[in-house]
Amino acid sequence: MNYYHAPVRDLQFVLHELLDVSAGSPIAEIADPDTINQVIEAAGQFATEILAPLNGIGDRQGCTMPSSGVVTTPDGFKNAYKQFSEAGWTALACQSEHGGQGLPNAVNAAVMEIFAGANMAWAAYPGMSQAAYTCLAANGSDAQRALYLPKLASGEWAGTMCLTEPHCGTDLGLLRTRAVPNADGTFGITGTKIFISGGEHDFTDNIVHLVLARLPDSPPGVKGISLFLVPKFLVSPEGDLAERNAVTCGSLEHKMGIHANATCTMNFDGAAGYLVGEPDKGLAAMFVMMNHARLLVGVNAIGLMEAAYQKALGYAKDRTQGRSPTASTRNVPADPIIEHADVRRMLLTQKAYVEGTRAFAQWACQLADTQHFADDSGVRHQAAELSALVTPIVKAFSSDLAVECTSLAMQVFGGHGYIVDNQVEQHLRDARIIPLYEGANGIQAMDFLGRKVLPDQGTRLEMFLAIVTEFIDANANNPVLREFTAPLSSATEVLRNATHEVLMQAKTDPHVLGSVAASYLRLAGHVGLAWMWARMAAIGLVNPASADPIYASKVATARFYFKKLLPEIHSLAAAIAAGSGPIMELDFG
Amino acid sequence: MNYYHAPVRDLQFVLHELLDVSAGSPIAEIADPDTINQVIEAAGQFATEILAPLNGIGDRQGCTMPSSGVVTTPDGFKNAYKQFSEAGWTALACQSEHGGQGLPNAVNAAVMEIFAGANMAWAAYPGMSQAAYTCLAANGSDAQRALYLPKLASGEWAGTMCLTEPHCGTDLGLLRTRAVPNADGTFGITGTKIFISGGEHDFTDNIVHLVLARLPDSPPGVKGISLFLVPKFLVSPEGDLAERNAVTCGSLEHKMGIHANATCTMNFDGAAGYLVGEPDKGLAAMFVMMNHARLLVGVNAIGLMEAAYQKALGYAKDRTQGRSPTASTRNVPADPIIEHADVRRMLLTQKAYVEGTRAFAQWACQLADTQHFADDSGVRHQAAELSALVTPIVKAFSSDLAVECTSLAMQVFGGHGYIVDNQVEQHLRDARIIPLYEGANGIQAMDFLGRKVLPDQGTRLEMFLAIVTEFIDANANNPVLREFTAPLSSATEVLRNATHEVLMQAKTDPHVLGSVAASYLRLAGHVGLAWMWARMAAIGLVNPASADPIYASKVATARFYFKKLLPEIHSLAAAIAAGSGPIMELDFG
Repeated sequence: MNYYHAPVRDLQFVLHELLDVSAGSPIAEIADPDTINQVIEAAGQFATEILAPLNGIGDRQGCTMPSSGVVTTPDGFKNAYKQFSEAGWTALACQSEHGGQGLPNAVNAAVMEIFAGANMAWAAYPGMSQAAYTCLAANGSDAQRALYLPKLASGEWAGTMCLTEPHCGTDLGLLRTRAVPNADGTFGITGTKIFISGGEHDFTDNIVHLVLARLPDSPPGVKGISLFLVPKFLVSPEGDLAERNAVTCGSLEHKMGIHANATCTMNFDGAAGYLVGEPDKGLAAMFVMMNHARLLVGVNAIGLMEAAYQKALGYAKDRTQGRSPTASTRNVPADPIIEHADVRRMLLTQKAYVEGTRAFAQWACQLADTQHFADDSGVRHQAAELSALVTPIVKAFSSDLAVECTSLAMQVFGGHGYIVDNQVEQHLRDARIIPLYEGANGIQAMDFLGRKVLPDQGTRLEMFLAIVTEFIDANANNPVLREFTAPLSSATEVLRNATHEVLMQAKTDPHVLGSVAASYLRLAGHVGLAWMWARMAAIGLVNPASADPIYASKVATARFYFKKLLPEIHSLAAAIAAGSGPIMELDFG
Repeated sequence: MNYYHAPVRDLQFVLHELLDVSAGSPIAEIADPDTINQVIEAAGQFATEILAPLNGIGDRQGCTMPSSGVVTTPDGFKNAYKQFSEAGWTALACQSEHGGQGLPNAVNAAVMEIFAGANMAWAAYPGMSQAAYTCLAANGSDAQRALYLPKLASGEWAGTMCLTEPHCGTDLGLLRTRAVPNADGTFGITGTKIFISGGEHDFTDNIVHLVLARLPDSPPGVKGISLFLVPKFLVSPEGDLAERNAVTCGSLEHKMGIHANATCTMNFDGAAGYLVGEPDKGLAAMFVMMNHARLLVGVNAIGLMEAAYQKALGYAKDRTQGRSPTASTRNVPADPIIEHADVRRMLLTQKAYVEGTRAFAQWACQLADTQHFADDSGVRHQAAELSALVTPIVKAFSSDLAVECTSLAMQVFGGHGYIVDNQVEQHLRDARIIPLYEGANGIQAMDFLGRKVLPDQGTRLEMFLAIVTEFIDANANNPVLREFTAPLSSATEVLRNATHEVLMQAKTDPHVLGSVAASYLRLAGHVGLAWMWARMAAIGLVNPASADPIYASKVATARFYFKKLLPEIHSLAAAIAAGSGPIMELDFG
């Protein structure tokens, strides 16, 4: 079996040669290049040796419920988690005061990509704990932080985020779970939450649920939602496990993919909960974590693309079928299918998208680091603005592409791609959740266009485009780069014009936003990828091809991206210009 | 549960109002409009009542092998087939001399779309029998036809097509299955075939395998392949079942979808086979059936798109979430999501593609009928040329769109789309096989561009474009239609220019064909759909909206298609113009 191997060299290229996350950024003191390389290599080893072999097993076995409220993960999963937490991986991005290693987002994201690429269903368990850690670290009281965060950092306990209810997903204003004050200062939490990833499992002794619920006198809608901490087992002030709390897993969902990740219906029957942060400020508290989670979800999609691409590439080199038009003198009955141009097209599409989105996502994670670590408040502010702007692109564009690219990987296999044993179809089934969760991609697009671009008349977008233009201008006198900078410059103009068009239409038409948001996000995503590919090509061109094949590979893949994929912006621009008319006319009956 | 309902009105619109398959064509005597309507309505009833309720059961249970060589289909499947064959559905498109009803391709395709939409895995069993019938009817001896065809027509026996082997799928020239002459005129067939749909099952007493194999003295490659008939049970001259033949199912594949369709490895151990047609002419004999099968596979994809669209539409009308920007005065906590523009975009994309591909596929089936039934040899010849031209478009474009649209249907459901119980994700898993089988879509694209367009310098393509242009010219003085005819005319020019570009490049570059074929097929598919949508809009515009909501619906959906989807041709044209350079440069290592 051709197991996943971490794209160590490409991650190093992105983190060091493209983004220079150590030397050129505020995180130099935290993570020097050697440390980063060691972390990535160790993550790759763990992924290949421990996680990847469990990926197919997890898919076939899935999670089970041997008795009411008890969830068993597939064979090997629990033991892998034990090794994982003992090796310190759960603490990677946690703060040192909680026993964490404090490594920056960019490194954490690289590692998360690797773990998700090897075994997405497994990686989602520590991923949820990390989200809970981040949320509680940002919003919890000192006592809450002291009691819970070290256990989350060590991996001894796990965490979840409990938002969705049967009748409300996107529209959290509708949520009904109630929180009634008890005499002892706790709250009795009652309600049903669905789609809770890792809501119950056998990895840890305790699970810390972060739950959105409504206080008795709170206003309706999103302004009346508070955040509560509800542990599966209550915790004594000394940190010891006490009585079982009234929160139980009622059932497991049967899903298209990520079978090994327990997606739980969680029933809260007057469970004891602790208010986190201010009353009625739960949504804002949760959203501290949501942007972080959305970046990581995009990175997760990149991991799946990489895993599927590796399999398709391996198959295309091995499988012989038909003759290449330029290899007919070879005395063999058939050539490897990688010599067929149409197969190369499918492989290059995957390669261009996985490496392009990786670069862009890592840049977004670098922004998040700058936002937190930079000395200068202006630098921090700009990074925060840019980070908010591009986070929905990373989530939605990467995950849409993950569905497209894992499907292309199957196509390279021909009929064999449809067979479970070849383990490529699982990647598409697993990937298909990513455009749906952590805010469906339509919501990401509305967030991007409706909250990040339109309200400030495109000012924040121009902040981004100015950085892109700076790169173009800096290379204005480099004729070798013109094949990339010229279409990149055109692409920025296409995006500017589209933005202008939408701003004009939106003045009088409330449906423009929803009508064009998806196309607009994808157009902006292409500008981001084009910028990254131009930069990567520039690095490829100044390094001798003999030094490392990655340099010629970057140049060739950039050419493919610019010539074959970027032109999609023209159809997107046309769809945006067409506005809401063609969308609102039909009476669906 | 919201079961599939046949799109009876839309099929009637296409068959009667758009294509006039009865009155205006050579098949008037065979199928008048009332007969066609009755057949479609009855098929719809059977699909909704019998087949659709088994679709989820079939997916969950799959086929099983209770003992070596024995295959059991899911609960209810066998009984549904009994009702199906007793009702005469298996005989629908068979010739009257074999007990068939002789209905034309267009009607048969409409019915096949319905059955596949309700239950693709189930429908593939009679689908394979129909393919075997067609192949044997075209190539069998009088004795073979007399002995086997009535049983295939009645559904008493089933059929299969055995082409693929472990090391050869696309490249049939590599096949190794041997046929050794026996003293009695039969042949001993030995070899292993894989991916045999319906290779073994419990529907029928006998299964007739049509097998490609190699005679001892045949030349290597595709010129040394012969076609054999290998029944599961030998048949006496009187048509009675005799001894069991040495052909057995060795194993069932575990697949991403169509779990209820048995995908078998078939072992031939000196099984008795009968030569069908001439020695070494097996591939040509098989290809009589292949074009037919490819059309039906495209139609199958349309059925799945329809089924998924129906579910998404129903969900979007029921599910309330968030406020529509123009409904905020309504005193409800949330509006149906169908009022959100982004949801409408997803629904309209599905609607435009399912109805557009349906119209185009039915036109292709009408061509196949004209090819067979027209009195005039010139008319027959033209229809045959056009049918050969557009068949790969119907197969590949429809099936690529089926993957895209079933995935969009899931997206409309949000996270609920990922849950098995909601039965929408199954459509994507089922649909994903269609771009892979009956010639992977890359092969369809190579066939289209490499065999149908380039060899005659685009003459056959111009035959098609002349028909499109005729429609444009006929409406040149109709200003109301200009919003459709103008972009349609532009689209034909984009296709003509792309064709010219490829013809020029192909003179010196053998890799152009494979490099651009996929984009070129999709571009041509858009021209076909644009033509159909312009024609459907024209019908919609001349009928009073009050007569039937379908007319306004066709106009609105056409507008959506032209404004939002057709612009994809510009990115496709750019990718085509870029040729093979960006595809052949990279060294994959």
